[in-house]
Amino acid sequence: MGAGPRRIPANWRRAAAAGGGREERPHQEPQQRRPGEERGGGRRPSCSGPVLLPMAAEKGILCVGLVCLDIISVVDRYPPEDSDSRCLSQRWQRGGNASNTCTVLALLGAPCAFMGSLAPGQAAEFILSDFKRHGVDVAHLAWQSRGETPCACCLVNCSNGSRTVTLYDTNLPDVTAADFEQVNLSQYKWIHWEGRNAPEQVKMLQRVEDHNRTCLPSERVATSVEVEKSRPELYQLFPYGDVVFVSKDVARALGFSSAREAVMGLRGRVKPGATVICAWAEEGADAMGPDGVLVHSDAFPPERVVDTLGAGDTFNAAVILSLSRGNPLSAALTYGCQVAGRKCGVHGYAGIV
Amino acid sequence: MGAGPRRIPANWRRAAAAGGGREERPHQEPQQRRPGEERGGGRRPSCSGPVLLPMAAEKGILCVGLVCLDIISVVDRYPPEDSDSRCLSQRWQRGGNASNTCTVLALLGAPCAFMGSLAPGQAAEFILSDFKRHGVDVAHLAWQSRGETPCACCLVNCSNGSRTVTLYDTNLPDVTAADFEQVNLSQYKWIHWEGRNAPEQVKMLQRVEDHNRTCLPSERVATSVEVEKSRPELYQLFPYGDVVFVSKDVARALGFSSAREAVMGLRGRVKPGATVICAWAEEGADAMGPDGVLVHSDAFPPERVVDTLGAGDTFNAAVILSLSRGNPLSAALTYGCQVAGRKCGVHGYAGIV
Repeated sequence: MGAGPRRIPANWRRAAAAGGGREERPHQEPQQRRPGEERGGGRRPSCSGPVLLPMAAEKGILCVGLVCLDIISVVDRYPPEDSDSRCLSQRWQRGGNASNTCTVLALLGAPCAFMGSLAPGQAAEFILSDFKRHGVDVAHLAWQSRGETPCACCLVNCSNGSRTVTLYDTNLPDVTAADFEQVNLSQYKWIHWEGRNAPEQVKMLQRVEDHNRTCLPSERVATSVEVEKSRPELYQLFPYGDVVFVSKDVARALGFSSAREAVMGLRGRVKPGATVICAWAEEGADAMGPDGVLVHSDAFPPERVVDTLGAGDTFNAAVILSLSRGNPLSAALTYGCQVAGRKCGVHGYAGIV
Repeated sequence: MGAGPRRIPANWRRAAAAGGGREERPHQEPQQRRPGEERGGGRRPSCSGPVLLPMAAEKGILCVGLVCLDIISVVDRYPPEDSDSRCLSQRWQRGGNASNTCTVLALLGAPCAFMGSLAPGQAAEFILSDFKRHGVDVAHLAWQSRGETPCACCLVNCSNGSRTVTLYDTNLPDVTAADFEQVNLSQYKWIHWEGRNAPEQVKMLQRVEDHNRTCLPSERVATSVEVEKSRPELYQLFPYGDVVFVSKDVARALGFSSAREAVMGLRGRVKPGATVICAWAEEGADAMGPDGVLVHSDAFPPERVVDTLGAGDTFNAAVILSLSRGNPLSAALTYGCQVAGRKCGVHGYAGIV
């Protein structure tokens, strides 16, 4: 399990050794480095802060999965079926779990890239410009010649924060293992998959495993998978990934009634030494790493919950970032709950840092 | 009440006198004249069919009200709050009551025009091209320099046809009486208002009343208003319009428990000689004209109800068209229920003729 998430990443160790003071407290760092209104590549760690040796440049995190257009209507009560109502506000937002995770990583100051499919058109134009605005690397976007860019209509109830998502996602081909062959693994310290086309994603994960077996420990790429939807075909992802994120929905579908039960019960289904993490809304999150110790973090609810859309993706981003910077699992879990909590108190993501 | 809707329109009388056989059975006509896949101005009555004298050209119907972008997600069950689901299909459709009424009028072969506001942008581009595709005259579109084109997220449940509409419609100015001053009333035989900015709309209706008082009976313009939302400010429209369409929602809000009760109860609130019409979903529609006779039509439900979005606007269009061509109220009501019933059996409007 040399590539496991709880190791201190090689490049962080190098940075610390090189006297890069900014890297000395990796856990607090994301909160300190606030991106400006218009952040770009220039805000990346390698280009700012105290003098760092070139080798200390922070490698990126790649997220593979869905990007879609979210059309978000904010309402003050969930509309009864067959009613007509006016919403309080409406906005277009780039959505999709992996895409949202990139948004949060970028806002927290981590260099990151997205890999997923798009079809040319108005929705894709909007998405592309939003990726660029957030400084997310889009070199791995797979432009498809058939199908439509997925679009989700989301009702956010600002009186309780609930988000009801109706996604149209039927005909755009997902990225394949062949697409993933083009990725230069040495660019990344961590690759995260949102479970979708699982058989292809298994091949991608196997490619990373092969890579990790043949390279120096310092060059290994950590992996994580998210199993959020209770579609049994996604469960084939459990034995892959150094970190496995399991949603409350999946945990319940598998018969578990708490995050604690889920991480304990699923430990036998992940690969030896992998970490299982399960967030459970206002009850916080539980996790178990290679040492078999169960860790828990309470939730950090904001004063008023207004928008939980993307809270899970925010949690994942913060946990991945914290682990990728060498923090212990318990600290990463707490950080994930803190950032996700902040997200629930604001509309969208701009206010999370 | 020379301008009342139950008179035989002057231009129809002229056409019949001139031997325009196509105009002899005005009620059946809309169903016989099916527009092609791409219908344009060339399909308008004045340019096709048997030889007609130029004076027999059919004057248009103008609809004043909302146009918006409808983003329609078709689901097989109404999503519970805070759930994630995939929809069966999704489409963009031009929406808004007055805009939908134009769509149906155009599909039924009637020359028609739309008057309402738009703000430049992607949604407006889509709307404009759809108006043109349907052959709806857009010369009276009012382009606004502030505000956004309204957008409605609609969930259509194809297992029962219900449509749940969440409209964002807060900041685009409506057309005003000053805008309406630009309309050359002699172009139209009928003007229909979807109740929105009622005080301005009252001024527009008064302008038509003034016009009607000073012109030949054959040049008078018939008027109709729709009071669909139970917002009391809209009720000031009741005393205007030769025909007043009242929705089930409004009828209920006013304490009526059936269409029959509503038309009888509201008769005292409309102008003398006006017609009140109230449709009540699967119970059909009731109406009362200047003669005080209550008329009723049963509904004509399709074999399977799949999409009721715009069914009310379809009913209004068919009733207006039938009345504008000189049919009796009972025939117009039946025709309205027939066309609306067909609409409920198809997605969108393409299959209604």
